Amino acid sequence: MTDKRKPEWAPEGSGTEFASRVVVGKQSPASSISQHVTVHQVKHVDITSLVEGVKSCNRTMLSKAITLIESNSDKHFEKGQELLKQLLPYSGSSIRIGITGVPGAGKSTFIECFGLWLIEQGYRVAVLAIDPSSSISKGSILGDKTRMELLSRHADSFIRPSPNAGVLGGVARKTRESILLCEAAGYNVILIETVGVGQSETTVRSMVDFFLLMQIAGAGDELQGIKKGIIELADLIVVNKADGDNIQRAELAKQEYNNALHYLRHATEAWVTKAVTCSSVNGTGIKEIWEIIQNFKISTSKSGIFTQRRTTQNTEWFNTLINESVLHSFYQQSRIKESLPILQKKISIGELPVAMAVAELLNQKT
Amino acid sequence: MTDKRKPEWAPEGSGTEFASRVVVGKQSPASSISQHVTVHQVKHVDITSLVEGVKSCNRTMLSKAITLIESNSDKHFEKGQELLKQLLPYSGSSIRIGITGVPGAGKSTFIECFGLWLIEQGYRVAVLAIDPSSSISKGSILGDKTRMELLSRHADSFIRPSPNAGVLGGVARKTRESILLCEAAGYNVILIETVGVGQSETTVRSMVDFFLLMQIAGAGDELQGIKKGIIELADLIVVNKADGDNIQRAELAKQEYNNALHYLRHATEAWVTKAVTCSSVNGTGIKEIWEIIQNFKISTSKSGIFTQRRTTQNTEWFNTLINESVLHSFYQQSRIKESLPILQKKISIGELPVAMAVAELLNQKT
Repeated sequence: MTDKRKPEWAPEGSGTEFASRVVVGKQSPASSISQHVTVHQVKHVDITSLVEGVKSCNRTMLSKAITLIESNSDKHFEKGQELLKQLLPYSGSSIRIGITGVPGAGKSTFIECFGLWLIEQGYRVAVLAIDPSSSISKGSILGDKTRMELLSRHADSFIRPSPNAGVLGGVARKTRESILLCEAAGYNVILIETVGVGQSETTVRSMVDFFLLMQIAGAGDELQGIKKGIIELADLIVVNKADGDNIQRAELAKQEYNNALHYLRHATEAWVTKAVTCSSVNGTGIKEIWEIIQNFKISTSKSGIFTQRRTTQNTEWFNTLINESVLHSFYQQSRIKESLPILQKKISIGELPVAMAVAELLNQKT
Repeated sequence: MTDKRKPEWAPEGSGTEFASRVVVGKQSPASSISQHVTVHQVKHVDITSLVEGVKSCNRTMLSKAITLIESNSDKHFEKGQELLKQLLPYSGSSIRIGITGVPGAGKSTFIECFGLWLIEQGYRVAVLAIDPSSSISKGSILGDKTRMELLSRHADSFIRPSPNAGVLGGVARKTRESILLCEAAGYNVILIETVGVGQSETTVRSMVDFFLLMQIAGAGDELQGIKKGIIELADLIVVNKADGDNIQRAELAKQEYNNALHYLRHATEAWVTKAVTCSSVNGTGIKEIWEIIQNFKISTSKSGIFTQRRTTQNTEWFNTLINESVLHSFYQQSRIKESLPILQKKISIGELPVAMAVAELLNQKT
């Protein structure tokens, strides 16, 4: 069931740019949450009250702030950026943890278990999802909230699904900005979940401090199916579902990963990535995972790598956005849209050298 | 010894854009080749005679054509592209083979041995080098010609060193265009040599049909030191120097590579990359390497992958060149040069959100 609809709350005069796609997530038998998300209605965007609302950790206001940021409309861009500007001084003091893994690795169950445990320790936990494919598969509003039922009900948690489907770059910008808003609202552990498909891990890696790769024990051929590149992004590999009669296989998989990690580059300077096991069902390994993350934060903070990475991420994001924008406006020109396929054709049949075609396209004298 | 000088041949009215850097290469004791390259002098660029000269495989004319292509001057760009345009219909019918490996792997000795063997079989062999670091290390005119003494003297070979130092992108464009010129001159095996440093392998991969990674047996820890990414670009791994008391170690290294290749992605669809040994000293394995390359060409041609890759390479090159040119002219604007560091500063101290800074930079209304 896919149903494109406008959320109950939307800025005055807004159009379809606020449409949200509601997709049925993985159904849990225990789920009793309504199929429709209720968001309070407001009639206009008041930056000052949004800023105050976010700062006082009003979850409804935080939701609205994120919705504003996620709007694809030019007229909301300005307001969203103004909001961010005012909240920037209150952001930054969290640990940003990326979590990836193939569908079925148990990411949601893990996040539910890990999140609740963190809240018990006194942390405030925000969960964001980045998934360019969310509108066509799963991982949407209902999916996430259904799968993380207890966590989503807790007063100290905040769960926000992927922005509406779009190009990964756009989704990434929105998630980056949502992280800042969540931090301004006082969430000090931010979990960014992504499904292990293609580019999205690299994107998440570029916005988090710590990257956790979730795996499950397979038929002994762990290493064959995994992309080396993704392992090399990870600061920790967690073999999930180490419970019941699966414990031994999970331990074996852990060892295989630890062997393989010998031969691979580590994601973070002066940090040795290793593999551990955990069970989201009975909670074993959860505490140890958090201790590893704490150690990571302490040692990278001491060495300066923690801050340095955030600065680099920010600079790279800035550069990427500039380049994307410049190229976007170039390719948007009707002159370019017309010439491009013609030149492409000429190149493919060997009628024009590539550099000459480029010169022609840029309207330089050839 | 580094000596920046103008070649004896240069178009009329040319300036320092034709300067070539002459660097001493690895000295072979047997070398008796003069330290200075002799190129015939001409006084003006006559496209028609260059086209005819290249088509009739006049090596001097081919050299001149490449020198024209390599010029960094705007005024020669037009003529160079016109030359290429006229020669394009005669290009394409070769196998383009990339050869990479760390310094000391024996690439030049292999190319000398392999090239001479190919000429014996009736092929015409052109050797191009792509090495952005050539001006500061080795691999220049004299280096290459000295190290491939017999091959460089042979009437059926053509050896051309790296274009003068520059950004990799620029060097790459020139090498791509040189490939086309060599093909138009009737060379049917094009060897593109690069040294294993950073980006250059990816660049060479993007312009060849077949990519050969040259390795030597080390102290048994072959796999530790190699970047997985480079192995995943290769269509064949050649363990060189399998001669004398090194044979056993080379065989062992070969086996290790073959094991490792199990776990890695292959560079070419439906082609299984494997490792073999060879000796450039006594010629063992040379024939087998050529057979592998022949099989590669036959099977990828049959499946259409051969042509498809060339088309994709051309399209990607076109797109890359467009993007580079567009971004280059954007960043060249003095307004941008001024604002960029100021905005960067504001971002780093958290005064401005990134997307707002980008909007400001692009002079959009924020």
